[in-house]
Amino acid sequence: MRRWMAIDVGQTTVRVRTSWTSEVITAPGFHDPAADPVAAAFGAVRPILAAFAGSMIDDVPVVLAIGHTGLPEPAEGLDAVAKLILAELPVVSEVRLFPDAVTAHAGALSGRAGVVVAAGTGTVCLGVDSAGRAARVDGVGHLVGDAGSAYDLGRAGLRQAVWHQERREAASALYEAARRHLLDDLDLGDDLGASLRRLCWLPDRVKLVAAFARPVIDSAQAGDQVAARLVGQAAADLAATVRACAALIEPAAEDRRIACVGGMFASDALAQPFRAALDLADWRVVPADGTVLDGTVLLAGDSPGLHASLGHFRKGS
Amino acid sequence: MRRWMAIDVGQTTVRVRTSWTSEVITAPGFHDPAADPVAAAFGAVRPILAAFAGSMIDDVPVVLAIGHTGLPEPAEGLDAVAKLILAELPVVSEVRLFPDAVTAHAGALSGRAGVVVAAGTGTVCLGVDSAGRAARVDGVGHLVGDAGSAYDLGRAGLRQAVWHQERREAASALYEAARRHLLDDLDLGDDLGASLRRLCWLPDRVKLVAAFARPVIDSAQAGDQVAARLVGQAAADLAATVRACAALIEPAAEDRRIACVGGMFASDALAQPFRAALDLADWRVVPADGTVLDGTVLLAGDSPGLHASLGHFRKGS
Repeated sequence: MRRWMAIDVGQTTVRVRTSWTSEVITAPGFHDPAADPVAAAFGAVRPILAAFAGSMIDDVPVVLAIGHTGLPEPAEGLDAVAKLILAELPVVSEVRLFPDAVTAHAGALSGRAGVVVAAGTGTVCLGVDSAGRAARVDGVGHLVGDAGSAYDLGRAGLRQAVWHQERREAASALYEAARRHLLDDLDLGDDLGASLRRLCWLPDRVKLVAAFARPVIDSAQAGDQVAARLVGQAAADLAATVRACAALIEPAAEDRRIACVGGMFASDALAQPFRAALDLADWRVVPADGTVLDGTVLLAGDSPGLHASLGHFRKGS
Repeated sequence: MRRWMAIDVGQTTVRVRTSWTSEVITAPGFHDPAADPVAAAFGAVRPILAAFAGSMIDDVPVVLAIGHTGLPEPAEGLDAVAKLILAELPVVSEVRLFPDAVTAHAGALSGRAGVVVAAGTGTVCLGVDSAGRAARVDGVGHLVGDAGSAYDLGRAGLRQAVWHQERREAASALYEAARRHLLDDLDLGDDLGASLRRLCWLPDRVKLVAAFARPVIDSAQAGDQVAARLVGQAAADLAATVRACAALIEPAAEDRRIACVGGMFASDALAQPFRAALDLADWRVVPADGTVLDGTVLLAGDSPGLHASLGHFRKGS
């Protein structure tokens, strides 16, 4: 029987599934590839490999598929990660590395063509047509990109909180929410400005800012106008991302499907204005079939299908 | 004769002046206070103290004034920095620590009341009235704040470059400029998106993003409409920051002066729309008298005057 292991490396959590055990293991998510991108990408996977090494049978080969939020991007770097994995676990017969946009796409559309927008901590949109041609929009990181992500919305909310304190904007529930988020929960000091200056340099700043998206959405649902405007902007940005992606590929009529995945779409406060702003007459929004981990499992299978050209494959010796 | 030493700790460079030598020494600027804010703040000053220790006369006391971009903000942290300095150099009779917004203000208006907006890598605006009442607007760091700073403009320019690549925006000179900035100059990889993802985690990311403000301004002056819109937005943001600050203090009519300092105002492409957007009838924009280091020298003098309540003072034993 063919054996496989699928690992999803996200910014918050690393998850795994295998063909031979129902055991669920998670590890801390991935951040900060700066010092050594190859070592950082490998390091996020390593605890999972170690946890499962004992349950592998030495002479039964395993195909290992990984969806990863922090893969190094020059091809040599990718191949170096694959080699480190093969050296760590000689029972692995093949390593398949995919950016997490690809595994999200495969999971949401069960391997079929279409556009998948994933908006959680970050935002990325991937379109694949039935010939395997692909277009990626956004996903360029929190510093400059990731429009409409939890990070982006959280940042916008924190900025409004400061502006309220400076009397640049009308009163907003976001100021009190930000004080609670940063001061009570995170203990970042006794004034908002000082907390935000410190936040700039914390290793988990992306997660901390993204976590403020929830209070912004809650404030919008409770009727705060400033928060509602920010949520509407995030929805419009996500819709623009999808439109840009759809315009870059030329799928057949039946492949003009859009699936939305990730925590940002969990709230109707965002999902409804997103659909309203989408404005793509000949496309239809479909429910996502599965998760990023489901997609990784699919891509560990016999054939990665449409997604074959979107990953890096290396066989063991 | 009274002796003094004035140190300006910026994000790019540390500069010093003393009463007893014309020697000019600079040290690398300050960044990343995350791990230990007190040690980081002290560490930025220490090379300067070491360089001048030999030229001090053991029994002639020195007043040391420091304007610092990265002081810890709880009072205990500030005092801990002052104590470390006193322990390092017992000849120092008094340490005076000021946020760099205060030294910039003192330098630009020669110690008088008014509003000073400083826009370089970051943005901060400080208003002080003739009673010494102060209001600070923005200066909350690059992650959420610093509207209209070089960082903010550089970030906006990089985002437009990505959007051009994704065909979300009209053609712009910024795409080629960003490729040159990130790929040729910084050698961050072979595609723009990958470079921006890596940029998120580089220790000197703030400096690298801020350095893109110059190409954005140059593109605007060369007639690029997208770049011109971004520069106009930065000018409008800076004007809004000044208006917010002016509204928070109540200076006498003769103290309603505004001085602009920092690299962002060096170009007419920004300074002109800034003045046009300012719209403060009973205030006048005046030329800055001096630099941040000039202000630090002033605050090392006999009396810090209006700025006395804006610093942290500690006498040696």
